[in-house]
Amino acid sequence: MSNSIQSMKSNGEGSNTGDKTLGQYLLDCLKCEGITEIFGVPGDYNFTLLDTLEREKGIRFVNGRNELNAGYAADSYARLKGVSALITTFGVGEMSACNAIAGSYSENVPVIHIVGSPKTQVQQAHKLMHHTLHDGNYDVFRSMYESITAYTAVLTPENAAIEIPAAIRIAKEKKKPVYLVVAIDLVMKPVLQRESQDMPLKTNAEVLKAASEHAKQLLEASQHPVILSDWMVQRYGLSHEVEDLAQKLNIPMASLQLGKSGVDETHPLYMGMYGGALGSSKVRDVVEQADCVLAMGLIWSDSNSGHFSGRLDTTKTIIIEPNSVKIGEAVYLDIKAEDMLHELLRAEQSKFATKKGTTYDFPYDMETGEPEDLLVAESYYPRIQRMLREQDIVVAETGTFMNGISQLRLPTGANYIAQAGWESIGYATPAAFGACIAAPSRRVLLFTGDGSLQLTVQEISSMLANQCRPIIFILNNDGYTIEKYLNVKTDNQRYNEIPMWSYTKLTEAFGGQTFTVKVQTNGELDQAIRDAEVQSQERLCVIEMIAKDPMDAPDYLRRTREFLEEQEKKQS
Amino acid sequence: MSNSIQSMKSNGEGSNTGDKTLGQYLLDCLKCEGITEIFGVPGDYNFTLLDTLEREKGIRFVNGRNELNAGYAADSYARLKGVSALITTFGVGEMSACNAIAGSYSENVPVIHIVGSPKTQVQQAHKLMHHTLHDGNYDVFRSMYESITAYTAVLTPENAAIEIPAAIRIAKEKKKPVYLVVAIDLVMKPVLQRESQDMPLKTNAEVLKAASEHAKQLLEASQHPVILSDWMVQRYGLSHEVEDLAQKLNIPMASLQLGKSGVDETHPLYMGMYGGALGSSKVRDVVEQADCVLAMGLIWSDSNSGHFSGRLDTTKTIIIEPNSVKIGEAVYLDIKAEDMLHELLRAEQSKFATKKGTTYDFPYDMETGEPEDLLVAESYYPRIQRMLREQDIVVAETGTFMNGISQLRLPTGANYIAQAGWESIGYATPAAFGACIAAPSRRVLLFTGDGSLQLTVQEISSMLANQCRPIIFILNNDGYTIEKYLNVKTDNQRYNEIPMWSYTKLTEAFGGQTFTVKVQTNGELDQAIRDAEVQSQERLCVIEMIAKDPMDAPDYLRRTREFLEEQEKKQS
Repeated sequence: MSNSIQSMKSNGEGSNTGDKTLGQYLLDCLKCEGITEIFGVPGDYNFTLLDTLEREKGIRFVNGRNELNAGYAADSYARLKGVSALITTFGVGEMSACNAIAGSYSENVPVIHIVGSPKTQVQQAHKLMHHTLHDGNYDVFRSMYESITAYTAVLTPENAAIEIPAAIRIAKEKKKPVYLVVAIDLVMKPVLQRESQDMPLKTNAEVLKAASEHAKQLLEASQHPVILSDWMVQRYGLSHEVEDLAQKLNIPMASLQLGKSGVDETHPLYMGMYGGALGSSKVRDVVEQADCVLAMGLIWSDSNSGHFSGRLDTTKTIIIEPNSVKIGEAVYLDIKAEDMLHELLRAEQSKFATKKGTTYDFPYDMETGEPEDLLVAESYYPRIQRMLREQDIVVAETGTFMNGISQLRLPTGANYIAQAGWESIGYATPAAFGACIAAPSRRVLLFTGDGSLQLTVQEISSMLANQCRPIIFILNNDGYTIEKYLNVKTDNQRYNEIPMWSYTKLTEAFGGQTFTVKVQTNGELDQAIRDAEVQSQERLCVIEMIAKDPMDAPDYLRRTREFLEEQEKKQS
Repeated sequence: MSNSIQSMKSNGEGSNTGDKTLGQYLLDCLKCEGITEIFGVPGDYNFTLLDTLEREKGIRFVNGRNELNAGYAADSYARLKGVSALITTFGVGEMSACNAIAGSYSENVPVIHIVGSPKTQVQQAHKLMHHTLHDGNYDVFRSMYESITAYTAVLTPENAAIEIPAAIRIAKEKKKPVYLVVAIDLVMKPVLQRESQDMPLKTNAEVLKAASEHAKQLLEASQHPVILSDWMVQRYGLSHEVEDLAQKLNIPMASLQLGKSGVDETHPLYMGMYGGALGSSKVRDVVEQADCVLAMGLIWSDSNSGHFSGRLDTTKTIIIEPNSVKIGEAVYLDIKAEDMLHELLRAEQSKFATKKGTTYDFPYDMETGEPEDLLVAESYYPRIQRMLREQDIVVAETGTFMNGISQLRLPTGANYIAQAGWESIGYATPAAFGACIAAPSRRVLLFTGDGSLQLTVQEISSMLANQCRPIIFILNNDGYTIEKYLNVKTDNQRYNEIPMWSYTKLTEAFGGQTFTVKVQTNGELDQAIRDAEVQSQERLCVIEMIAKDPMDAPDYLRRTREFLEEQEKKQS
């Protein structure tokens, strides 16, 4: 994930403009980033973009069943491949994708959103066209997108060679979505060669020296430091650097919700997830009693801090951010995280002794429940943890499942995909589709609930149409259980009820040859997992898990509920 | 649909504030407008709103399967009942509904969008919460909504008694969506009584006098005037006034795409739809040869003007808009349409003689095709027209179907619901759900295509959960046929392919007891319609119409294609 725009220029290959059309040039730039699939939905204002894409080699269009879903799929693809692209049509298409792009912004995922717009002359004449607000304003949607992207540009043949590389660089540097709109008639126009004035971000050597000296002082003065691994590690590809640092200094690591799967969870120094009062008490003790916290990116949000129950001593915290470092109250700007980590890695070997034989338990390490017992959280999460394999992609839906799956120990090389901050229900199913497309040779496991699945169910059809073979676990607890947990004021809300679907019949309606099974007991789940491991070689698998108690939930969610109840009492 | 906020005040009843909570006061205001159902999706920031709603009598919450769909349903509900409401949660919920609300804006539909936001203290402390962009900005989504609504407000106990009536008045006067956001902790706070300074719009009598005199002069000087009925007639409830005017003056009427079903299509003076070069040539002749055009609202957009092929003599056109009148080049401001029409109705009896025995044919009046023939547009549209009954609600999806259904003659009292301007595919299915909720005693017919249905299919489940019994016609032509027609540059685009579903099995997966049938010939369609007319008394019906030729299409779409091809040739 190095800046390939830069490398392109240095070797003179790749997306040099030559006599390319704007559309070709755009696609070349995306290909240089390793993008081999673009998600989206066709519409009459993006025809020339899609026609260009359909003729192009090495990159292809992948239809989503709607734009929100295509956006979610693109988000997941970017989490795995570093960056992704989405094509929608003007107005109707882009307005449907707002939630997905806002989510990418919130969770720091670089998605290049490309919109096809009406012909230039139509726009200049302010004609009233379909897919507009009928007010002649052709800038209104781009202007809305300014709020949820890091950069927007209206592409022309004159500016494409500057704007496209700039947008891609910003997306990659900031790990944020960007927005490009191009009129349908300009896609086929030749791009004008231009010398980009774009200034990529560089580390200031003086500042880096000061920051690393400050950090080393703090570390040397400490006895029990700890590493907190957050969102930045995965997005900036810094897993090895963080693991090496832990190893060299011999200090334990914990992750936050937004940082899960950033470091190898089988590493002997990895303790598990830190969630303040809501997470493991053992991890909490180590983190909160540490006399120096080395945080790798840090978003101190409700969901990432155990609803703000976490306690970090900010005077003894070193926060490495993508382009800055904060030590205690001192902020050092213009330092790339990678450079700061390399500087710290030059430190001497550790003086920090980890107790001999220290091992860290995870909440679901021990299998419980008899085969004939009905499924409950304590019994099925250990079974799910046991089935995970190296390199698995684990996609967890916002809701009951995320509260449990986030507590599992993942095998080496596994990726965890979830919206732990934006938390838009319905995200996971299209995200699993995106993961299947991004990594066709890896196993994708989707964990979703009945409530969430209903929002975006049609993307199972896209999986079937693209021969994807994920194993889909649907937790059928007959309603929005997560919402019931979070509402501490009333009970039995009708609005948290959902229609009961036949989840195993869905794939049939979508025209797929699939393996589907409904399970109610631990033994049935064990058997279904064994069957799915065989069947998923050939076909998509659906395991519907019936939770007889609709309020069955993992401990993390139960503790969240208790915590919210206490807060409510205090305030009223 | 008179201004009930005004009438409330005059009789001192209704939504007077008393010691009501903000939530109760809001619901009372909505009830005063005749809103008995509010669409939406629950989320933890709208719990207190939904809890209040769940306790309230005379108004209830109707769950959509996702926010976009709930927004579409609310749009359709407002088209039928005059105004509607939608409740979503902060960030994720409202961002999913952008396309629906932008569509309501584009098509002039008053939807009150209500958003539940995080606690006041959390917002004031700029805490990083879930469903935010993690930047502490709690105004970003409201600010985006400014672009696609006519009014936005952040509600507090202090301003609610002013802002809520103002927002509702603006929605109803402008026929545009409005946006209200309220923090979860403020919903239960008592509303402060306030004297509203709100100034509803009134007609200026002097201006009205001048405008009506000018209009009468033009009418008196003309020999062959015509009435063009557009969007305004239905939204402002002016059908009777327009029909009376046609009757009194004895002049023919045509509708535009956005105005369909505004006037009684069985009226002897109703000629059909005017679509420039793309529509009926007979209607075109009358309209374009008229020496005075009385237009009731006029949106001169591509889809409403036959891709701008229509020709109106603007020097001889009287355009009555909701709050102004334009005659030739003269604009008269501050005139409510209703008042202008009443003024014109005071004119003398007509001097315009319609030829004795003039009747107007419609494209699909004559039944064609033998029972054993495969379904083609020429054969199935007449059959659909024949099955229509008075008071039917006909919902047509953007795409192939809208191009044909829009050309049918509707029976008296029938409503036509379609997005003829915004044209967001996927709209019609949730819109049919909204129609079923808005008018439970009327028959709802949904005409959708396979491509469009896939975007929003889950709303069939909402219909089943709410015991709705529409008859759903699914045109299965194996792809985005409309897009294939509109792309005049390339052929056989892969991106216009869609997965083949088993549409009749879908309802089974959604857990419904339904009547489903697949038809390929005229005879099978005839039988299916007869069966559905019986079955729909008891259950939801799905008629899947197989179009063997994926490029089969109604004439209106064929002519559109030819027209676009010619335009393309001229330009290249």
